[in-house]
Amino acid sequence: MENSRAGAAAAAAHKWKFQGNDGLNTASALSIRSVLNMLNSNIDQNDTRVVVPLGHGDPSSFPSFRTTPVAEDGLVDALRSAKFNSYSSTVGILPARRAVSEYLSRDLPYTLSPDDVFMTVGCTQAIEIILTVLARPGANILLPRPGFPFYEARAAHCNLEVRYFDLLPEKGWEVDLKAVEDMSDENTMAMVIINPGNPCGNVFSYQHLKKIAETARKVGIMVITDEVYDHLAFGSTPFTPMGVFASIVPVLTVGSISKRWIVPGWRLGWLVTNDPDGIFKESGIVESIKGYLNISSDPPTFIQGGVPHILSKTTDEFFSRIIGVLKETADICDEKLKEIPCINCPNKPEGSMFVMVKLELSVLDGIKDDVDFCLKLAKEESVIIMPGIAVGLRNWLRITFAIEPSSLEDGLERMKAFCKRHTKS
Amino acid sequence: MENSRAGAAAAAAHKWKFQGNDGLNTASALSIRSVLNMLNSNIDQNDTRVVVPLGHGDPSSFPSFRTTPVAEDGLVDALRSAKFNSYSSTVGILPARRAVSEYLSRDLPYTLSPDDVFMTVGCTQAIEIILTVLARPGANILLPRPGFPFYEARAAHCNLEVRYFDLLPEKGWEVDLKAVEDMSDENTMAMVIINPGNPCGNVFSYQHLKKIAETARKVGIMVITDEVYDHLAFGSTPFTPMGVFASIVPVLTVGSISKRWIVPGWRLGWLVTNDPDGIFKESGIVESIKGYLNISSDPPTFIQGGVPHILSKTTDEFFSRIIGVLKETADICDEKLKEIPCINCPNKPEGSMFVMVKLELSVLDGIKDDVDFCLKLAKEESVIIMPGIAVGLRNWLRITFAIEPSSLEDGLERMKAFCKRHTKS
Repeated sequence: MENSRAGAAAAAAHKWKFQGNDGLNTASALSIRSVLNMLNSNIDQNDTRVVVPLGHGDPSSFPSFRTTPVAEDGLVDALRSAKFNSYSSTVGILPARRAVSEYLSRDLPYTLSPDDVFMTVGCTQAIEIILTVLARPGANILLPRPGFPFYEARAAHCNLEVRYFDLLPEKGWEVDLKAVEDMSDENTMAMVIINPGNPCGNVFSYQHLKKIAETARKVGIMVITDEVYDHLAFGSTPFTPMGVFASIVPVLTVGSISKRWIVPGWRLGWLVTNDPDGIFKESGIVESIKGYLNISSDPPTFIQGGVPHILSKTTDEFFSRIIGVLKETADICDEKLKEIPCINCPNKPEGSMFVMVKLELSVLDGIKDDVDFCLKLAKEESVIIMPGIAVGLRNWLRITFAIEPSSLEDGLERMKAFCKRHTKS
Repeated sequence: MENSRAGAAAAAAHKWKFQGNDGLNTASALSIRSVLNMLNSNIDQNDTRVVVPLGHGDPSSFPSFRTTPVAEDGLVDALRSAKFNSYSSTVGILPARRAVSEYLSRDLPYTLSPDDVFMTVGCTQAIEIILTVLARPGANILLPRPGFPFYEARAAHCNLEVRYFDLLPEKGWEVDLKAVEDMSDENTMAMVIINPGNPCGNVFSYQHLKKIAETARKVGIMVITDEVYDHLAFGSTPFTPMGVFASIVPVLTVGSISKRWIVPGWRLGWLVTNDPDGIFKESGIVESIKGYLNISSDPPTFIQGGVPHILSKTTDEFFSRIIGVLKETADICDEKLKEIPCINCPNKPEGSMFVMVKLELSVLDGIKDDVDFCLKLAKEESVIIMPGIAVGLRNWLRITFAIEPSSLEDGLERMKAFCKRHTKS
C-alpha cells in the first residue's frame, strides 16, 4: 500500500478535470426530503423526548399502521418460489400488469388492459417517466399550488417549464379552473392533479373532476392524476378516480401500494394510460414511455410477482382499519388545532394523510415566517412539521396526522405550548 | 358511461397538444433489451424446441444457477421484521451501506466508510447517476469498445458526448491505453472499464489495472469501474478491484448482488467512491451524487435491510459452486465453438458470463452480417445470440455461456448445424 499522506499530497496537487454539477444541487434543494433533513438537523440532541414526525406521509413504523400480513405473504411466496429472480421485462411482468389493470378497472366505466399498465419503482419513478416524456424545448406543464415539490424538482431537471394554478382554500381546495384555461398555451402538455390531495387533505368531487376533464379537453392537454393516496378518503366525499372521465380527456394515472397498504419502502408503483380512444398511442406517448423504460431501472421482479396476491387477497377489514385510524387522527388533528389561536385550518381533511393550515404570524412574537416557525418548533419541541413554502404556500404549514394517535396528541400539545410561548402578550 | 364509439370519434377529431418524444426512442434503440426483443420476435412459433437464450447475462432461471437460500433468508427476515417498510434515506440505509463498505474493503489496501457507499436500484441506476452527474455542455466520457450499450444510451439521454477506446483482442482484450491518452481533452471527465469483462469475458490483470490508473491520472480523469461481475473469475487471472489503485486515481465503483448471487431481478446495487484522498468530495462530485439521489427512486428498504445478512452469511460453498458451473460452461463453450469453422474465438473467457467471437462471413452463404446471422439463427434454430454490433463490434457475436450446461450444449449444437447449413459449398 502506498503511503497515504504522500498520496494525499500528490493527489491534491494533481489537476483533475471533473467537477460537480450545480444543476443537480439546485433541483434537489426543492425536495421534501432535503427540507426534512434540514429540520431534523435542527432537533436539540439534549431533548430526551421522542421526536414527533408530522412532516412526511410515512406512518409505516407506527403499530396502528402496520401493513397486512397478506401483503408480506405475497412477497415471501414470490421470493421463495425462485420464479422471480430474473430481470423483469422493461414494462413490468404480465401478472403484475394484469393485476393492476383489474384492480383499477373495478372503479372505471371501461376495462383497462395489462398493456395500459407500466410497473414503476414507486410513484416517484412514474412521475419521472411522464415528465421526461413530456419535456422538450419550450414545453410547459401546469402544477397545483400547493402541491408535491417532487414534480417541480424533476421538471427542473429535465428543463420542462412549470406553471402553477391555485387550489382554492375557500372552495375546499378545488382547482382554479379559470387559471388553468388562462395560463395554457400552445406549448402546454398536461396538468397535474393530486387526489386525494397532498398537501391539502381534500378529496375532489365527481362533479369537480368532470369539470377538470372538460377544461383540459377544451385547452387540449392531458390530465396526469396522482392517485398515490387512492381510496384513503374518510369524509363525506367518496374517492373517484380521474380515469372515469377518460372519454372526455386522456388521463395518465400514477399510483402505488405505498399508501393504501402503508408500505412506502417497498417502492412498487405504476403508470397507467386511461385512454379508451387510443389518443396516447396515436400521439406517440405510449412509445416514448416504453422508450424511457428501456433505459430505466425496474421494480424488483419478485415484488412485482407478489402484486397479484396483494391486490386480490387483502381483506376489507384491513382497509377499514386503516381508514378508521386515519379518521380518528384527522379528528384529533382538527380538534387540537382549534385550540391553537395562531393556526387557522380552513378545511378539515377528508383524505390522504395531510392538512394545510394557515399560520397567523401577526399574533406571534419573534417568528419571522413558516420556515422560522418550523425550525424553532423542531429545536424547542422536537416536533417536525413541513413549512408551507416547501409545498408552494408561504406562511402555511403542512401537518401529517397519519401517525400513532397518542403521538399525534403529544405532538400537537407540544405545538400548542410552543405557540402559546411565542404569542404576543 | 358515455357511448364509446361516439367518444372515440369526438376524441379523434379533437386537437391535442402533447406528443411523443423522439429522443427517448432513439436512446432506447441502443439497449440490449430492445435488441433481445427484436430477436425474440423473430423466433418461429412453430418450432417445438425450447428457445436457448445465449443473449443475456441472466442465468437465474436455471437450476444450476439457483441463488443461495441464505440470500432469500436475508430478505424474508427483513420483510417479516416490519422494520423496513418505511422510506429509505436517499443515500440508502446505514446498515446496508456499512455492509457494502465492509464487503468491498476486504479486497482493498484501505478501509471504505459507509459514507463512500450509495445504494442503488441495480447497477443500471448507479450508471445513470454517475453519467447524469458528469453531463454538462461539451463534456465527454471514454467508453470501451466493445462494451455495454446501456452507457451509450444513458449518455445520449443526458447529452454527454461519448468517445470509444478499443479493447484489443490480440492482447487478451486489454485497454488501448495509447488511444485513451490520445482522445482525452480538456472536456474529458472519466473513462469506463468493465471488469470482469462484458462482453469479452476477460479479467484485467493487476499490472494492467495499474497502467489504466496511471494513464487516467496522467490525463486527469476519474476511472469508473463496472464490477457487476466481481469475483466471477475462473481462469488464470484473479479478480482485482480497481479501487486498489485509488491512491493513484479516484475510482467510482458500480456493483451489485445481481451476478455473484444470481439475482438480477432483485435490483440491488451500489455506487462507491474509492477516494482515500478526498478528491471526489473536494470537486463536488459527492454532493452532486447526493443531489441526484434526492430526486431519484431508492431500492426497496427491506431489500437493503437484507444486505448485511446476504453479504456476511453467504458460504464459500455457494460461491465455489457458481464458479464451478461457470468454468464448466466456459469450457463447453470453448470446445464447441472450435468445431464451428465460421466462428473464431480469440480468447477463451476467464470471467463474467460472456465471450466475444468473430464471425467469418466469407465462408458463409447468404448471411449479410452479424444481425442477419442472429435473426436467421433465432428463426431457424430458436437460439438467441447477441449481434456484436449491439455491443460495438460489427460482425462479431456475444455469446452467453452462463446457462444450464445441457442447454448450452444443445444451443451450440444447433448453432453448429446452422453454420454448416449456411456454409459455402
